This record gives sequence, structure tokens and C-alpha cells, in this order.
Amino acid sequence: MASSILSDCSSCATSRLLPLRRALHPPPPRFRPSPGPAPSPRRPLLLAAAAPLPLLPRARRMAALSAAASSADPATVLADASAKIIDGKLVAKQIREEVGVEIARMKDATGVVPGLAVILVGSRKVSQTYVRNKKKACEAVGIKSYEVNLPEDASEYEVIKHIATFNDDPSVHGILVQLPLPRHMNDENILNAVSIEKDVDGFHPVNIGRLAMQGRDPFFVPCTPKGCMELLHRSGVEINGKRAVVIGRSNIVGTPAALLLQKANATVSIVHSKTKNPEEITRQADIIIAAVGVANLVRGSWIKPGAAIIDVGINPVDDPASPRGYRLVGDVCFDEASKVAGAITPVPGGVGPMTIAMLLSNTLDSAKRIHKFK
Amino acid sequence: MASSILSDCSSCATSRLLPLRRALHPPPPRFRPSPGPAPSPRRPLLLAAAAPLPLLPRARRMAALSAAASSADPATVLADASAKIIDGKLVAKQIREEVGVEIARMKDATGVVPGLAVILVGSRKVSQTYVRNKKKACEAVGIKSYEVNLPEDASEYEVIKHIATFNDDPSVHGILVQLPLPRHMNDENILNAVSIEKDVDGFHPVNIGRLAMQGRDPFFVPCTPKGCMELLHRSGVEINGKRAVVIGRSNIVGTPAALLLQKANATVSIVHSKTKNPEEITRQADIIIAAVGVANLVRGSWIKPGAAIIDVGINPVDDPASPRGYRLVGDVCFDEASKVAGAITPVPGGVGPMTIAMLLSNTLDSAKRIHKFK
Repeated sequence: MASSILSDCSSCATSRLLPLRRALHPPPPRFRPSPGPAPSPRRPLLLAAAAPLPLLPRARRMAALSAAASSADPATVLADASAKIIDGKLVAKQIREEVGVEIARMKDATGVVPGLAVILVGSRKVSQTYVRNKKKACEAVGIKSYEVNLPEDASEYEVIKHIATFNDDPSVHGILVQLPLPRHMNDENILNAVSIEKDVDGFHPVNIGRLAMQGRDPFFVPCTPKGCMELLHRSGVEINGKRAVVIGRSNIVGTPAALLLQKANATVSIVHSKTKNPEEITRQADIIIAAVGVANLVRGSWIKPGAAIIDVGINPVDDPASPRGYRLVGDVCFDEASKVAGAITPVPGGVGPMTIAMLLSNTLDSAKRIHKFK
Repeated sequence: MASSILSDCSSCATSRLLPLRRALHPPPPRFRPSPGPAPSPRRPLLLAAAAPLPLLPRARRMAALSAAASSADPATVLADASAKIIDGKLVAKQIREEVGVEIARMKDATGVVPGLAVILVGSRKVSQTYVRNKKKACEAVGIKSYEVNLPEDASEYEVIKHIATFNDDPSVHGILVQLPLPRHMNDENILNAVSIEKDVDGFHPVNIGRLAMQGRDPFFVPCTPKGCMELLHRSGVEINGKRAVVIGRSNIVGTPAALLLQKANATVSIVHSKTKNPEEITRQADIIIAAVGVANLVRGSWIKPGAAIIDVGINPVDDPASPRGYRLVGDVCFDEASKVAGAITPVPGGVGPMTIAMLLSNTLDSAKRIHKFK
């Protein structure tokens, strides 16, 4: 089914779809990547921040982010590119620490402990892993987690009944329904049942509508695009007045990312499966958020020199050299892009770790809002 | 305060803001139009449709739209340009007729008469005129209109109480609160009180959210951007896969227009007051929707040859030759644009007449949906 991969950016790389990709990305786009270059064994140096950065700063922090190299971990890459590497793993760790400090401060002042309820339907291993990771992350920062596990054949009514109970529970400040749901359920009915005040995933149409509107603010911003923005902000990437291209228009990444960039006064274009000249449009962008789920789609030739690139894609490609038989690559051809871009997130270790950090941040924000704590 | 105008596109034209403009457009943008050319006395020929077009067709109809010239009316312009003129007045008339036929069919089959409630607060003359026009348009197609007039000093609570009554009234299928509201009222609180099933203006965040999301549809599409799309469709302008630029990002025109174009598979860029190179970006577009409220902002040099232009702007500029002392111009310099574009709406007589037609269409759709009539 899948061919072996010659290089990160080989056009013959066939990605195997992990469930995460299915959850993150809508039906496969019809881009045709341009022919691949010769394989390159060299990869750029992963640069990491030297010191913790405060929560939600908007100042230029690229210098700090590039001040130190990280030690060997899955995100670590080596060698000679010009792009600064945005270390999402490090930023996510800093955010988790900041959230932990705020939770302790809130608990000391009010006695309130933020609570996150997670509803898991079925026994998909990947979903179970995500839920376990979320639970662990909650515990680490002091968020109390509540979990409901329902069998694969549970009814929509049962799921909605549990949501309703959590909606009314004052110790729960955030409710998350783990996707994907079994096929016999209607995602829309279930997600709409979550109170918008506790919709920490930010998927309710009211939250998306408020995100799109001038002069309104959503209760919650969806975690992955919020993480993308946080990486840009903490990397000192100026957004106001800049050209931005978002590749992909899914409800949970591409569309809200575009709306967030526009709220931050970028001039935004959305590139999608029907776009006739994605390369030409993308090359005009100062900021690229790629969230389309196609391995190595964005080649070096698509990138304006100096652009900042946030790569949301997590695509497994066959790799006989890996013990698992595959490895993860982004939507952006890292080898090529890192030679042209000004800053880039690696895959893994870029946007990935930010999603759970933003979930914790949204849960804290919810508890603060509900209890009017500042 | 205002200088006299030398030509439609003179850079020294100072627009006087009518209340409509304030209602349609958010705070003034900071574009700096490029220097104006020498005044041109020539204007293009207004071409109108030869025969009624069916409701919501998607086929190419430019040929029909350009088959006959209209007689003398405020929209009529003369002479030699290449662009086809999209006659909004004629299309709106056709839509009103089509809506009237559908309402009669529904009444015959079910006995139900669609009802539209309009709430007017204060005694602003322009608002009174709009409400009167809407009422007349309703009567003409067979929609029963309900009107509540409240004094300028009415409380927010009073307005919301009337909205609640209409929300519960089964003979009312659409509720419209005439904007702008007095300053002591919170627009958001009031507009959010309208049931989303009766929000024929389509301004509720849920409607905007559903418009932004893939796989969801709003209950209602805001009338003016819906009118823009209808003009494009009925003029045979292909949208799928085309580059589109929306100039302006207001909640009631620019933003929903961009979302609609994207839902129709255009590749959309939104140009706004913080955009650094609006001319360059606009020139890439096959479709331009200008909704920024700056007289003659879009010059001929901004336009790709053959592009389709929908001009939402209605800007009064001083004109000593006019009995009223001013005349209305769009956001697009018509004299220049009509020599470059493939199709263009005039001002007045373009988008303007479409808004009420779409309101009637939304009210009919609402009654059909509530009574499950197809």
C-alpha cells in the first residue's frame, strides 16, 4: 500500500493515515505536489529558548527562542539551515508551567480547582492514548479531570445526557468530547450539546461565529490554531499588516487559524483543494500555516525567503529504517523549507505539543471566567 | 466640509457619510487611494437582462444579462466601456416576482402567509424610510408585515421584550431590528435575542459560525452579501477555483461575503485597513467584492482585465450639479473600472436593490422551513 520513503520531500512518499490525521483534517485535498528534489541527508539545527517566556507575551522573542540548542529528543534535528526553529515542545512546557502557577494562585485565593471532563466513546487505542495524555497533563498542572467512558454502541442520547450532567456540574469548567465519534453518532448534535461556556475545544458555531466577527470575542479559541498563534507570538513574528496564507480549511484548524490571523490584522488568503495556483499564492505570504494533511506538500519553491512557517500536519510516511516502520512528517518539506524560511516549526515537536497546553490554558480561562477571578 | 467633485474618481472627492454608510461599514479604513486621473466624461452603457431569469440558477447568464439596454433611470449610464453591467435593479425585480409566485403557491397549498416583524427604535428619517420601503416590498409579494415603533429613549429591556413576543408568535417567520440602534443600547444583546430560526438578517453569531464552517449551513445568510452572490451567480460568473478579493471586513457585508465566496470554493483574500498593498492583491482577483465605504477607492489599475466586480459601497459625494447637492458613488471608480473589468455593478442600481429582495427571500425560506413546505 505504501512505498518506502527516499527523503522527507520525495514526491513518491505515500503517507499512511493515522486516526489523528482523520480527526484533524477533512476529506483529502487534491493538490499535486511538484516533483521532488534529490534526497538531502542534512537537516537544520533545532534551536530552543534559553529561558522561560512569560504567558502570552507579544514582543519579539525569536532571539530568546534561538539562544540555545536542545538535547537529543524526537524533535531534535541537525545541521546547517538558516531558519530559526520554533520549538513547540519547549514553548508548550513553559505554558504548562505558567498555567500551573496560575491554577495554584487561583486555588489559594478562592479554593476553586479547575475541572475538565472528557467523554470517550468506544475503545480506539489512539483515542485512549490521547485521553490518557490529557488526563496526565491535567494532573501535572493541578486541573481535576473527570472521565466518562462509554461503549462503542452507546447511543447519542447517552452521550448528550452525560454532557448535560457536566454542563450543570459547577466543579466542571471544561467539557471535551474525544473525536472521532462512532459513525452512528451525529458529531454536530453532540458538540452543540456542550454549553458554550464550557466548550474548551471552541468548536461550537457560536464560538466560530464570534471568532469571525469584528468586535466580538469567542469564549474559547480552538486549541490547535490557538497554539499556532501562540507559537507565532512567542517567536516574535509580527502579524499586523503581514500577508498570511493558511493551507487547508478544516473547521478545527484551517478556518479558525485564518480567522485568528485576520483578527490580528494580517491580510489572509486561504488555500484549499480547489485553489488552482497554491504555490504562487503561498509564495506571497510572510506567514504560512499549513494544515492540510498532505505529507511534504509545501516545497521550498512555495516559500518567500524569511517567511514564518507553522506546520500543523502530522503525516506518517513509511520508513523501513524506523523501528515502527514509519515516521512522522509535516505538510511542509522541512529540508527545503528550513533553507528558505525565517522561522519554522519541526514535526514532531512543533504544533503537536501545543494542543494539550492550550486545552489546559482554555480550562484555566474558563474557571477564571466562571468564578470571576483575575 | 466637503469639496466639490470633479469626477467620479477624483482623489479629492470627499464623501459625506449618510447613516446607511455608518450602518453598513465599520470604522473608516486607512486606505490611501492613488492619485486620480484626468476626469472622464464618458461612461459605459448599462446592459440589462432581456428576459426574467429563474430563481437561484447557477448557469452562465451573462449573455442574457447583456441582451438589452435599460431605459433612462438613475442607474442608467452611457457610452463605450467593455464591461458588462450587472443590473441589480432588474435582478432584484425578478427575485421579488419569483418570491411572490412562491408565496402564492405556499398560501394555496397550506394557507400559511409568511410574516416579517420589523422593530424600529427612534425617529431617524432614513431608518423610517428603510422600514417603509421594506413594508411596501413585503406587501407587494404577499408577506404580512408587523411593525413596532419605540421611542428613542426606550430601554433595551423593552426592545428585547418585543423580540421575545415575536419569537413566540407563529405568524411571524422573520424578525428584523432596524439598525443603527440608539447609543444607550447594546446591539449585541439585542441582536442575540432574536431566535436564530427567525434571524432573517443572519447576524447571529451562530449563523456566522455556521457560514464559516465546512459541512454546516447557516439558517440565514445576511441579505447584502447574499445579494452579491446572487448577482454573481445570475451573471454567470464562475466562482469555483477562482481568486476572489473582498475589500472590507464588516460583520454584515465583508466577512460574510468572504465566507460565502469560500463556501463556493473561491480562493479568498480579505483586504482591509491594515493591508499594506491592497492594489497589488486586488489586481490578482478574478472576482472583487468592494464593501469598505470609501468613495472610488478601487481604481482601474487595481483591476485584473476581465474581473467581475460587485460594488457594495454607497457613498454620497458633493455634486453642485445635482438638485440634492450630492450624488451617490461606489467604492469602485466606475469610469475606470468599467474599461478593464469583465462585469461590474453600477451604483446606484447594483447591490442596493438586492438587499430588500434577499430579505423577502429569507423570510419566505423561513416560513417554508418552519412549515416544512417545499
